[in-house]
Amino acid sequence: MAKMNAFYAQSGGVTAVINATACAVIETARKHKNRIGKVYAGRDGIIGALTEDLIDTSKESPAAIRALRHTPAGAFGSCRYKLKSFEENRAPFERLIEVFKAHNIGYFFYNGGNDSADTAYKVSQVSEKLGYPVICVGIPKTVDNDLVVTDCCPGFGSVAKYVAVSIREAGFDVASMARTSTKVFVLEVMGRHAGWITAACGLAAEKAGDAPQVLLFPEITFDSDRFLARVDAIVKQYGYCAIGVSEGLRNAEGKFLSESGLKDAFGHAQLGGVAPLIANLVKDKLGYKYHWAVADYLQRSARHIASKTDALQAYAVGKAAVELAVKGRNAVMPVIVRKSNRPYKWTIEAADLKDIANREKMMPRDFITADGFHITAQCRTYLAPLIAGEDYPPYKNGLPAYVKLKNVAVPKKLGTAFEV
Amino acid sequence: MAKMNAFYAQSGGVTAVINATACAVIETARKHKNRIGKVYAGRDGIIGALTEDLIDTSKESPAAIRALRHTPAGAFGSCRYKLKSFEENRAPFERLIEVFKAHNIGYFFYNGGNDSADTAYKVSQVSEKLGYPVICVGIPKTVDNDLVVTDCCPGFGSVAKYVAVSIREAGFDVASMARTSTKVFVLEVMGRHAGWITAACGLAAEKAGDAPQVLLFPEITFDSDRFLARVDAIVKQYGYCAIGVSEGLRNAEGKFLSESGLKDAFGHAQLGGVAPLIANLVKDKLGYKYHWAVADYLQRSARHIASKTDALQAYAVGKAAVELAVKGRNAVMPVIVRKSNRPYKWTIEAADLKDIANREKMMPRDFITADGFHITAQCRTYLAPLIAGEDYPPYKNGLPAYVKLKNVAVPKKLGTAFEV
Repeated sequence: MAKMNAFYAQSGGVTAVINATACAVIETARKHKNRIGKVYAGRDGIIGALTEDLIDTSKESPAAIRALRHTPAGAFGSCRYKLKSFEENRAPFERLIEVFKAHNIGYFFYNGGNDSADTAYKVSQVSEKLGYPVICVGIPKTVDNDLVVTDCCPGFGSVAKYVAVSIREAGFDVASMARTSTKVFVLEVMGRHAGWITAACGLAAEKAGDAPQVLLFPEITFDSDRFLARVDAIVKQYGYCAIGVSEGLRNAEGKFLSESGLKDAFGHAQLGGVAPLIANLVKDKLGYKYHWAVADYLQRSARHIASKTDALQAYAVGKAAVELAVKGRNAVMPVIVRKSNRPYKWTIEAADLKDIANREKMMPRDFITADGFHITAQCRTYLAPLIAGEDYPPYKNGLPAYVKLKNVAVPKKLGTAFEV
Repeated sequence: MAKMNAFYAQSGGVTAVINATACAVIETARKHKNRIGKVYAGRDGIIGALTEDLIDTSKESPAAIRALRHTPAGAFGSCRYKLKSFEENRAPFERLIEVFKAHNIGYFFYNGGNDSADTAYKVSQVSEKLGYPVICVGIPKTVDNDLVVTDCCPGFGSVAKYVAVSIREAGFDVASMARTSTKVFVLEVMGRHAGWITAACGLAAEKAGDAPQVLLFPEITFDSDRFLARVDAIVKQYGYCAIGVSEGLRNAEGKFLSESGLKDAFGHAQLGGVAPLIANLVKDKLGYKYHWAVADYLQRSARHIASKTDALQAYAVGKAAVELAVKGRNAVMPVIVRKSNRPYKWTIEAADLKDIANREKMMPRDFITADGFHITAQCRTYLAPLIAGEDYPPYKNGLPAYVKLKNVAVPKKLGTAFEV
């Protein structure tokens, strides 16, 4: 293939390490100047391609690109935008190819979850059909850890580390104060459909009695009687109870607890998350003083406590994506393959996008204890290496020195508008 | 003074570095074996003294005591328990002296806020009256940063660093997604009466447009029209808005917003904090998609991102407390004195407990901008050094290796009960 430009886009919810992948893509492309011209990034993800709003990453210094490795969130912007099938709606596909053609783009790197894998796969198919073949490589990213084939997803390990560290620390706090004050602490974490992040909280409990003592998974229907009995027993035994709860906790009717019809005095839907609900239930039924926290975006942007394993893997998949592309591998995704648990060894292999697109990896039932309130040894074996190692960013003035890129626009060649 | 034992107690809400102070007290006392016998700690704070539930810290290895330096929360337990004046209720004072006498305790180190300074002061007065003089030294600790005389309070700098780092990171996240998703992010932080922690969020905004763009202080009456206009203008200018809000935000009637009479469908008082209220207001009035986080205990237990300045000062006040005590200084508190801003220089001096007891340091009005929505340059100059430097704990299995002490009880000598 002749030398062509590359297009890189970030997709969906961002993570603490998606920019490490971007860093790897750009740095590796710069080492293949015989094959890859410029790397253009989509401003706000794929929308940037559709609207011909491309960012010229060649305008950024090596130091700025290097700093992406330790900068959280999406440096070029991301979006949630799913292309329908080519048959349903040809327009966005035709537009993408039009923009790629106009800017001499022969490589498409799409950094996202299962939706993005699907899009990248479709673009690879459609581009051939339209007579402008583009090498499409998906790059895994998602805090939800729900991509199939790959052993784990870059972005997840750092959230996992953040929630495990946080609930350990809060557990120490509550234990200190429990005699006269707070006895129950609830931390709400992300993961609406799968309990991977909730499970990661459990890593902090290494010995009997350690926080968190109770986990509430989206996979396990919430049974308030059983839950309250468990919390009461733990408070009586250990003096306090720390709880990790998934935002996706559901009741017996399959409804999210956080959407269970509670309204405030003005008739607004319940404002809080599931953590205050759970905490209030404990107070009402058991009388224990509570505190609760909702980590929300803090958990997925916490680059300051990123997992080293995660940061290394995020970089590795970006590097591998470019190396696969220059070898002409199309419609693939570099995935993480676990070679051994102790010591933890992993490698990167190429998998077909069509095997990954639109599928979802749920947490195995045997990762959750029979009573539904904690993780099993198998789960711990799987999760433990993913939070291993620290990868601190540099600091300036007591704060992490994260980079903001110039994000210079590539001059438009088409100039035609496209409604997204 | 003959060699006597020492009593150390942790008081009130715990912090990321109060154990660093405990570490310093014990390590320094061990260096003064000619004057100080054993250091006994109160199990669950002063309650431990009242109930004769003392912990023998001599049973802990030097390594375990050393590990306190990097372990958050209160290793011996803390409590909220305020002694009334001696005239109002003599019993607890008489009990304390009885326990001190029984265990040959001649030094009382009380590690807490302004209440604790008051208690330590009273004990020093009463112990003389009762013919068993005890050297009483208060040691500053509070995330609220509201002690007078001292330039700052150990515990505050680490919360300050945590909230500044967190809102910077969340700001990067929101900025990435703002085009198609969340445009407004709200982080709720502690500080019910004074806006020191809210102000610390502002440190993350070093350049125009940086997150957080809006701060809501407990000192500034909440005016929803002005607030909404500001948020709208910021979203229009920068694409998103990150907001730091104090849990103690009040309306024009002086009521906490988080207690403003909202009830859920079951008639429960509003479950959520102020962050979801603020976020929902933005959604209702401006239509912007929001996310919110409540850091709660995570912020004050986040030893993983402790400020080095704070950790050093927490150790320094503990060391100084013991050195003052062995010099026979009574009814004093070692305080932090700022010598210069750039470079930041500080020293420890002794202040009289009676000048500190029961007073509260509010944030100067000129630390808040005239419009009430951000911090001024003076505030930044004051706060910046307090978050400087990182002081990472050691890690094991990807998690901070915090110590749990054996906390062996000292055999009771009195055996009489005391109702607390």
